[in-house]
Amino acid sequence: MHKYFLLLIFSVAFLSYNHAQKPVEYVNPFIGTSNFGATNPGAIAPRGMASVSPFNVAGAQNLPLEKDSRWLSNPYVNENTFLTGFSHVNLSGVGCPDLGVILTMPTTGKLNTNHLEYGSTYGYELAKPGYYSVKLSKYNVKTEVTATTRVGVSKYSFPKGQSNILINLGLGLTNEEGASVKVVSSTEIEGIRNVGSFCYYKPEESYPVYFVAKFSKPADDFGVWKKTKKYNGIEGQWMPYNGKTRLYKDYRREVIGDSIGSYFTYHFDKPTQVEVKIGVSYVSIENARENLEKETQSLSFDEIYKNTSSQWNKLLSKIEVEGGTKDDKTIFYTALYHTLIHPNTLNDFNGEYPTMAKRETAKTDGTRFTVFSFWDTYRNLHSLMSLIYPKQQSDMVKSMLDIYDESGWLPKWELNATETTTMVGDPAGIILTDTYLRGIKDFDIEKAYEAMRKSATQLEENPLRPGIKDYIKKGYLTTKTTKSGSVSTTQEYNITDFAIAKLAQALGKKEDYKLFSRRSVTYRNLFDKQFNLLRPKNDDGSWYSPFNPNKGANFEKNLGFIEGNSWQYTFMVSHDARTLIKMMGGTKKYVAKLDEVFEKKQFDMANEPDIGYPYLYNYTKGFEWKTQERVTSLINEYFTNKPAGLPGNDDTGTMSAWLIYSMMGIYPISPAEPLYTITTPRFDKITIHLDTRYYKNKTLIIEKNGTGNLKSFTINGKTNTSFFVSHEALTKASKIQFNLKQ
Amino acid sequence: MHKYFLLLIFSVAFLSYNHAQKPVEYVNPFIGTSNFGATNPGAIAPRGMASVSPFNVAGAQNLPLEKDSRWLSNPYVNENTFLTGFSHVNLSGVGCPDLGVILTMPTTGKLNTNHLEYGSTYGYELAKPGYYSVKLSKYNVKTEVTATTRVGVSKYSFPKGQSNILINLGLGLTNEEGASVKVVSSTEIEGIRNVGSFCYYKPEESYPVYFVAKFSKPADDFGVWKKTKKYNGIEGQWMPYNGKTRLYKDYRREVIGDSIGSYFTYHFDKPTQVEVKIGVSYVSIENARENLEKETQSLSFDEIYKNTSSQWNKLLSKIEVEGGTKDDKTIFYTALYHTLIHPNTLNDFNGEYPTMAKRETAKTDGTRFTVFSFWDTYRNLHSLMSLIYPKQQSDMVKSMLDIYDESGWLPKWELNATETTTMVGDPAGIILTDTYLRGIKDFDIEKAYEAMRKSATQLEENPLRPGIKDYIKKGYLTTKTTKSGSVSTTQEYNITDFAIAKLAQALGKKEDYKLFSRRSVTYRNLFDKQFNLLRPKNDDGSWYSPFNPNKGANFEKNLGFIEGNSWQYTFMVSHDARTLIKMMGGTKKYVAKLDEVFEKKQFDMANEPDIGYPYLYNYTKGFEWKTQERVTSLINEYFTNKPAGLPGNDDTGTMSAWLIYSMMGIYPISPAEPLYTITTPRFDKITIHLDTRYYKNKTLIIEKNGTGNLKSFTINGKTNTSFFVSHEALTKASKIQFNLKQ
Repeated sequence: MHKYFLLLIFSVAFLSYNHAQKPVEYVNPFIGTSNFGATNPGAIAPRGMASVSPFNVAGAQNLPLEKDSRWLSNPYVNENTFLTGFSHVNLSGVGCPDLGVILTMPTTGKLNTNHLEYGSTYGYELAKPGYYSVKLSKYNVKTEVTATTRVGVSKYSFPKGQSNILINLGLGLTNEEGASVKVVSSTEIEGIRNVGSFCYYKPEESYPVYFVAKFSKPADDFGVWKKTKKYNGIEGQWMPYNGKTRLYKDYRREVIGDSIGSYFTYHFDKPTQVEVKIGVSYVSIENARENLEKETQSLSFDEIYKNTSSQWNKLLSKIEVEGGTKDDKTIFYTALYHTLIHPNTLNDFNGEYPTMAKRETAKTDGTRFTVFSFWDTYRNLHSLMSLIYPKQQSDMVKSMLDIYDESGWLPKWELNATETTTMVGDPAGIILTDTYLRGIKDFDIEKAYEAMRKSATQLEENPLRPGIKDYIKKGYLTTKTTKSGSVSTTQEYNITDFAIAKLAQALGKKEDYKLFSRRSVTYRNLFDKQFNLLRPKNDDGSWYSPFNPNKGANFEKNLGFIEGNSWQYTFMVSHDARTLIKMMGGTKKYVAKLDEVFEKKQFDMANEPDIGYPYLYNYTKGFEWKTQERVTSLINEYFTNKPAGLPGNDDTGTMSAWLIYSMMGIYPISPAEPLYTITTPRFDKITIHLDTRYYKNKTLIIEKNGTGNLKSFTINGKTNTSFFVSHEALTKASKIQFNLKQ
Repeated sequence: MHKYFLLLIFSVAFLSYNHAQKPVEYVNPFIGTSNFGATNPGAIAPRGMASVSPFNVAGAQNLPLEKDSRWLSNPYVNENTFLTGFSHVNLSGVGCPDLGVILTMPTTGKLNTNHLEYGSTYGYELAKPGYYSVKLSKYNVKTEVTATTRVGVSKYSFPKGQSNILINLGLGLTNEEGASVKVVSSTEIEGIRNVGSFCYYKPEESYPVYFVAKFSKPADDFGVWKKTKKYNGIEGQWMPYNGKTRLYKDYRREVIGDSIGSYFTYHFDKPTQVEVKIGVSYVSIENARENLEKETQSLSFDEIYKNTSSQWNKLLSKIEVEGGTKDDKTIFYTALYHTLIHPNTLNDFNGEYPTMAKRETAKTDGTRFTVFSFWDTYRNLHSLMSLIYPKQQSDMVKSMLDIYDESGWLPKWELNATETTTMVGDPAGIILTDTYLRGIKDFDIEKAYEAMRKSATQLEENPLRPGIKDYIKKGYLTTKTTKSGSVSTTQEYNITDFAIAKLAQALGKKEDYKLFSRRSVTYRNLFDKQFNLLRPKNDDGSWYSPFNPNKGANFEKNLGFIEGNSWQYTFMVSHDARTLIKMMGGTKKYVAKLDEVFEKKQFDMANEPDIGYPYLYNYTKGFEWKTQERVTSLINEYFTNKPAGLPGNDDTGTMSAWLIYSMMGIYPISPAEPLYTITTPRFDKITIHLDTRYYKNKTLIIEKNGTGNLKSFTINGKTNTSFFVSHEALTKASKIQFNLKQ
């Protein structure tokens, strides 16, 4: 009896434990913090403007992954050991250093303002959505951080004795410098930090981030420090302070400089916790203060974390999965978590945000999104948003059109209201068409069309389509037109023109449909039968020689291709896959060539141009099983529940979106075409809770039976003979069933 | 008839010209702009916070008087030729570099932001109180500047074509760096510039000056520039902009950095004038804007200049002089002008100012004064203010007491609410007593006494009296107590203690009167009969050896004396002159020794400790004529209507005050004693319009009859047998008459 009772308790506990594991509990924010995934384990609310990331990339202790010794784009690297603070605005999964500023640091004992000296090793890291904690070995201080959309919140558990909280405005991941700080009172600090020059471009558009910090306990002593540059003139001999750090004690006015910071010092007679809330804004200090007050006023650290965690769980629960291993669920929900970080909120609580280009203050009723890395995300992330979070995708599209209104052009790689001009192509239009054709139509489609058409047709001073004259005249860019990927850029323009054609068709613009349909396949001129690959052409129409298709992997400079080589680009014409098959000499030759990409290790899982490749077998009748096997094996190889569990840079969620789709058994193989191609899902059952504001159907269920490769799949019980399914058919279905062979 | 008529016209015109020459028209602001006088010819209102000075001390073209190549304390040097702008906060006649920031510069043609390149030679300079104009050779742009108390106003006459107005916040006379700038609109710019570390002291108290600039015409183009420091890390190779200047066009947010500025560009189709008003504040940008609006709103440049000129004339007219040459009048009124620059206004139009030490915002109903160089000015400037501008002197004393309230200590060398701690001694009390005993009593004398007594008696952590323990115990500081003038400092403390004794006496504090009277003459312990000079003593009471009395002239380091040597200090005990005479062995020996100072070229007209020396002969019966001859000859030698027409640094008006007194025939030989000693006046008639709020007598007339040395002088017709006259007797007299021998 007794034994039975115990067993019962154990079973109930075990079951309830299993049932109680919510999506948010599967997320492992350490995934992507190694292998250049460039994510960070810091605390952030969904699409937050603020986040609090541990910062461990400064100091010789962290070599070789030290921020100033190489191109390093993340505030945190899993392998590193020397932590110099917690940065309050951060980018996740991007390829260039920026932000990573407003660094707080708790220390104990005598005040030291040199991060190379006050930095500490650490242990006991714990990360969950909206929460990160760590113990700093040097100070025995536990630091917990959480965040609301615009406020980073920290809780420091200090031992007895002197403790210090530093806000270092000199240190940062960005290469920009310049800050201003003012102690407002013994519980408040405000300031400005300059950031920008993303990818070492456009320093003339670097911009300020504003902040206000509020402390739960008044400082016993406070002040500001400034390290000035060393004066080399004769006056240096009269300056005993030359090049040294100076402390401004009890100072209450602005201190301005490149290497400055502020300190709050406490003298505790027993172990004591201090909470610090830092509100940020890209508009003004006043807005940063309002963000702080409106989002966190009177709430404790624990209450704030609870709210943020609940927000995360609500969003992650839009997709419920059953079956699969715990690691499968972990990588799946972590990927979904990563797609909900960028694009992120730019507007303040009161709706204000800096406009594109002019940086004037404008106001929105909805959400103004930022961090649009469209060269990456047009391929899959936005269609995923249209499917799972259509309201967010709608606001993203509206933000794109606002940017067009403000600057005259659609964004390409937009970051906090600056166009970084990173990468090539004109990808915004692909997203606009894709979103519209997937049924998200609550935006001004005529303006969208106008904007897309403008960049596709304006011949002079066109920032989005350099080389447009050659492109229109010859059908392609040449080695003379651009040194940065004449073939790649031609392909990108083709895909955008395909999107314009599709939208023209939908809007009844027949002439444009014809015009842009023609323009969408001009990459064909660059197909060289000799190699069965795309190849750059010179200005006179001759092939660029000598041509080595292997050249250009691993970011090696390559005249015809940007960030890749011919292998990685040739197949990037899903919208014209059937013609490419013909040009290559038929299905078998196409499949053989595609196989060659993988076999010759030319496939790069981490690089966008070829991430659709494993799905291209679905265009070749009889070889669809290769898609299933390749996708399965790629997931197994590259996506794991480890810090190095992303194939490389997450590219603001693009890798993660690839994984989410692939594990659900569907993939948006041809952006701007509202369809998916299929593969075997990872889970037995996937329940997608659709947004009924956009979809009539409340729930979409994807089920898998059996194991091995795909035998058949049915939509609402009816067998689908193709390996493609339209977005409309999918979202109208209540159940999609994958029947496997065994 | 015709001829007679013409003659009449000529006579009338000539007479009216003579009669019409107002005091303000005699001022030559170029006096002191050479020979390290450190004044500048810029436009300033009386005791203005803002001024607009031509800035010609940057760039190799100005060597050897180039700001970074030496210790140079003025924004303008008459000999220099290369002008790089107009600075809007400036110090006049000080010995250390500071301020000289917020530099405007008009240029034409293509925008250039490097002052070493855009600087220009110039000509056609004209300077009057509240007005300066110059033509920039390179651009053919006439620049006129004027000022109100807190606003600098410029008028640029541009030719046709592209013109630019730069505000350079990188350049400055101060050694501090760091600024923030924001273009508010096409007619307004606001910003912050860091200044401080006066005399290369106290970098930790450097502080911001805030400004708002308003332009009479909207810019056609505008922007901000920033020159970043060169990045030496590996990332430098990815930064094509590394170390270069970047232009932020149409930029509307804060730009922060060390080397930044803002430009407004115009494209004129005909010659056009633009007026720029720059309001400054030491409290906030908002206050700078309010200062600008309240003081200059709707007023044109010409109206503003007219008002300021009228203010100057009103103040200068408090003393009217007749007789003397035009140059005599010029050097006299220029000196009076120079005494009305510092101390200057610190508070904003709304009364707000930053408090001493904590730099919190406080408010005054009157005027909060700043720039108190008391080691210099206690000797004569403040008694002159008590005589001529007693309301101003009263506000200065009140400011001193506010500083005591705010920081716990009276000021010594206060600059914009920072105590620079420059020089030695504890001079504030001398001024407080002197002012009170001259009948300016509308301040809290008990608080003043408390403050004076505090610094004279607090043994620990006393910033004003280092070495106080030795001073009280031994009566003097020793070569062990201080490396910076043990004898000098003892003398300074003696004089302050004399002032405390005098005030104690007046307030009926008999014990203190006795105590401080005793303490006021302890310098006697340092009188070495062997040299008939003061000599440093060691800690054990022995004389410091070897002793070379000549050592220490020309700022040479000298253990016992600060900025001087024993010759220049020994007689600096006017309050105890009669005892010194005795100690030296009587009148003849004293006179011989005093003569020796002059004959051995040990007298330094430009250095405060000995500036009373020529008047000391009045303490020696029968030798008073030497005072008259020495003073006359010193005026003739050192004070001229030329840029080099000051003997050296004006020391915020101390040299000028010496000249004014000396030309009026009276001198306050013993600070804190309300008396004057006399010499031959330079003018035939001097009319002083007394302030009837403080003096019963409306007018004091000083007349001179004859030439040569003094035969007698009468007060209200009654012969005065002594060469001294009390302040009370002087101010109660309606006429003082000097009768000369020939």
